[in-house]
Amino acid sequence: MPVLVMKFGGTSVATLDRIRRAAKRVGVEVSKGYDVIVIVSAMSGKTNELVGWVNETSPMYDAREYDAVVSSGENVTAGLMALTLQEMDVPARSWQGWQVPVKTTSAHSAARIEEIPSDNILAKFAEGMKVAVVAGFQGVSPEGRITTLGRGGSDTTAVAFAAAFEAERCDIYTDVDGVYTTDPRVESKARKLDKIAFEEMLELASLGAKVLQTRSVELAMRYKVKLRVLSSFEEQSDEAGTLVCDEEEIMESNVVAGVAFSREEAKMTLVSVADRPGIAATIFTALSEAGVNVDMIVQNISEEGRTDMTWSCPVDQVRRAEKAMAEAKSGDVFNFGELLADTDVAKVSVVGIGMRSHTGVAAKMFQVLSNEGINIQVITTSEIKISVLIDRKYMELAVQALHDAFELDKAA
Amino acid sequence: MPVLVMKFGGTSVATLDRIRRAAKRVGVEVSKGYDVIVIVSAMSGKTNELVGWVNETSPMYDAREYDAVVSSGENVTAGLMALTLQEMDVPARSWQGWQVPVKTTSAHSAARIEEIPSDNILAKFAEGMKVAVVAGFQGVSPEGRITTLGRGGSDTTAVAFAAAFEAERCDIYTDVDGVYTTDPRVESKARKLDKIAFEEMLELASLGAKVLQTRSVELAMRYKVKLRVLSSFEEQSDEAGTLVCDEEEIMESNVVAGVAFSREEAKMTLVSVADRPGIAATIFTALSEAGVNVDMIVQNISEEGRTDMTWSCPVDQVRRAEKAMAEAKSGDVFNFGELLADTDVAKVSVVGIGMRSHTGVAAKMFQVLSNEGINIQVITTSEIKISVLIDRKYMELAVQALHDAFELDKAA
Repeated sequence: MPVLVMKFGGTSVATLDRIRRAAKRVGVEVSKGYDVIVIVSAMSGKTNELVGWVNETSPMYDAREYDAVVSSGENVTAGLMALTLQEMDVPARSWQGWQVPVKTTSAHSAARIEEIPSDNILAKFAEGMKVAVVAGFQGVSPEGRITTLGRGGSDTTAVAFAAAFEAERCDIYTDVDGVYTTDPRVESKARKLDKIAFEEMLELASLGAKVLQTRSVELAMRYKVKLRVLSSFEEQSDEAGTLVCDEEEIMESNVVAGVAFSREEAKMTLVSVADRPGIAATIFTALSEAGVNVDMIVQNISEEGRTDMTWSCPVDQVRRAEKAMAEAKSGDVFNFGELLADTDVAKVSVVGIGMRSHTGVAAKMFQVLSNEGINIQVITTSEIKISVLIDRKYMELAVQALHDAFELDKAA
Repeated sequence: MPVLVMKFGGTSVATLDRIRRAAKRVGVEVSKGYDVIVIVSAMSGKTNELVGWVNETSPMYDAREYDAVVSSGENVTAGLMALTLQEMDVPARSWQGWQVPVKTTSAHSAARIEEIPSDNILAKFAEGMKVAVVAGFQGVSPEGRITTLGRGGSDTTAVAFAAAFEAERCDIYTDVDGVYTTDPRVESKARKLDKIAFEEMLELASLGAKVLQTRSVELAMRYKVKLRVLSSFEEQSDEAGTLVCDEEEIMESNVVAGVAFSREEAKMTLVSVADRPGIAATIFTALSEAGVNVDMIVQNISEEGRTDMTWSCPVDQVRRAEKAMAEAKSGDVFNFGELLADTDVAKVSVVGIGMRSHTGVAAKMFQVLSNEGINIQVITTSEIKISVLIDRKYMELAVQALHDAFELDKAA
C-alpha cells in the first residue's frame, strides 16, 4: 500500500470536534487505499501552558525535564485521534515518540531526528492497521530520555516520517489554505500559489512567513518529500492547498514568487571600530554568544584605520546586543566610538528561483521603492532573494508596490 | 543510603505553589541522609479532564488508548517536581513509567505491577542524584504499550517502589492528616490514630474510608512496607500522621480501632426463589457479570423448596441488578416471585484486630444499637469486623453511639 503522511497542527486538533473533522479527512485518504501516518500537535494553547509552568518553576530549567513536561500535550491528542478513528471503524493506534522509536540527538529542546525505524509501524500495517497516529514534536535520546525538536517541530516530524516511509506525499493541515504571494492582511490582492519550489519556501519560511518550520522544508528538500500545505477547515480536493516541490516539477512560474516581510527588525551600527584583520569575526562571535540572531551585515569602507559596522537583528534582542558590546568594550576585547540602534525598521524581500536566470530584478525592486519615495537603508542579496531594510512606516506600502510591480496577482 | 518513598496525591501537587511546598518536604528528608523516591499524581482535576475527553470521544474506548491519554497528567507533575527540586539545589530527575521501567500486566486501565527493576535508579543514586521523581499510576506492558493501574493507582506505585527498593518507609502525603477512628464530620470526637494494623486499614479502606487505595494496603502488608499517611498541608515531624504497620508493632490498642460507614447502600431481596443446589452461584454469577458489586449476602431458611435471597450493593447499581434479574427470569435461568429494593439503607461497621482475642464485641454492638432503637436489617462478620445494614436516617446516630460505647475518643 502507498503511504501518506498527514500532519495536523494545534488549531486543527484544538477541540474534540476538530479532531473529529481531521479524522474524517484521514478516513477519506484511507478509503483511497493509503496506509496513513498521522502526525499530531498538542491542542492549541496546551504547549504554551506547559512551557509557562516550566518557566515559572525554573527560569534556567533543565532542558531534559522541560522536554519531559512539554511533550505530554502531543500524547493526549495522539490517543484521542486514534480513539476517534476507531469510532469511525478505521483501525488505528497511537505511538509516542519512544515507542516508534523516533531516535534523536541528545540536544534537548532542539533535538535533531537521526533515525526512524519503520519496522514496528510497517508490521502493524501488514496486520491490517490503516492509520498510525504519532505524537509529533518528540523523540527519544540515546540515553533513553524524552527529547523535543523545538517549537513547530511537528512539521519536521511529519517530513521525517514521510522520508523514512517513502511516503507518496506529506500533507500539512493548518489554519491557512496554502502559501500566498504575500500576507493577504497586508496586500488584499495576494494570490495563493499552486506550487512553490523548496528553495523559495525556505526563504519565505526564514523570512517570517510562518506556514512551515524552516527545518521541515530543508529536510523535505534533501529527501525530495512532496510537501503540501492545506487548510483543515475546508473540504479538500487532491489539488487543494500549495504543493512545495522540486523546481523541476514547476512548469511555469513568475520570476518572483512572493514578497516577504518582517516587521520587528532593528538596525544597529557600531561607529568607528578599529579596523584590523579578524575584527568582524570578533564582533559577531560576541553577538552570537549573547544569543543575538544577526541577519543582514554591512561594513563601510575603512577610513584612517576605523570603520562602521551595521547589522540587523530582531527588535527584542537589541538590549542583549548592547550588553554584549558594552562588555566587549570594557573588557578591551575591541574598541568603538558609539553603538546606534534604530528599532523602527522593517525588512522586505522578494523571493523567486526565476531570479537565477533573469537579470534586473534588483534594479526593478530598487526603482519601485524609489518611485514611492522609500529610502533603502541596507541591502542583502542571495541567488534567489533580495532583501532591504526600510523605515517601518513604509513597510505595507513597499509590499503592495512590489506585489503590483512584479504582477504577483496574476498566475504565470 | 537508606531509601525513603514519598507519595504526593493530586491535591498536594494541584498548583506550582503546592509542588514547591511538597518539594520542601522532600528536601527535609534528603537533608536527613535519605535517597528519596517521590511518586506523584497528576494535578487534581487533570485526570478527570482527560477521562472526560476519552469518554466523549469514544464511549466504548480502546483501553490501550485510554491509558496513553490518561497517563499524561503524571508526566507533567513528575517533570515539574524534578525542576522544583533542582531549583532548590537538590539533584533530581524525573522518570516516566516506561523509563524505570515499571513492568505491568497487559490488563489496560487495571494493570498490576509485575516487576520494578531497581538498577537504573540505584545507578543514578550512586552518581549523586538524591531524588528520583516517578510518575505514579502508570507502567508499561510486555507489548511496550503504556498501562495504568486504575484510579488511585499512585498509592500502589508508591508501595511497589518501597518494596522493590526495600525502603525504610513509604510516606503517603494527602489532604488529611492521618487515619481517624471514624469520619470527624460525623463524630466530632473522632481521634487520629498513631498506628493502625494493615488488616484494620484494609477493612477501613474497603469500607469507604478513602484514605488509601485498598490494593496499596494489600501490597504493603504482603511486603511488610511501613506505610505512613500524613498531610502535605502541615509542618510535619517524624511522628506525624498515622503509621500503617504490622500488628506486632502496635504495643497497645483498643479492641475496636474504628467505626466505618458507607452511606450509599441498597438492600435487595429476591423473594421466593426456587431453592436448588447451585442457585446462589447462579444468582451471584449473573449479578457479577452485570457489574454489580455485591457486598453482604443473607439467605433465609428454605420453606417448601423456596427461599429468599438478600444482598447489599451500592445504590447506583440497583438498576443494573434489576435488569440482570429480569433477564434471568425471562430467559428461564431461574425463577422467583419478586425483587425488592430498599435504597434507603446504610452500612455501619466496627473494625479491630483486638476482636480476635476479645469476645463480646458483636453482642455489645447490637446492644448499643438496640438501646438507640435502631433496627438491624442484615449482619455480616469477619475475624476483625462486624457490619450491619440499618435504616439510613439512623446512620450518624449509630456511628456516634458506637464511637462512644467503645471509647474510641480515648487512646488505649
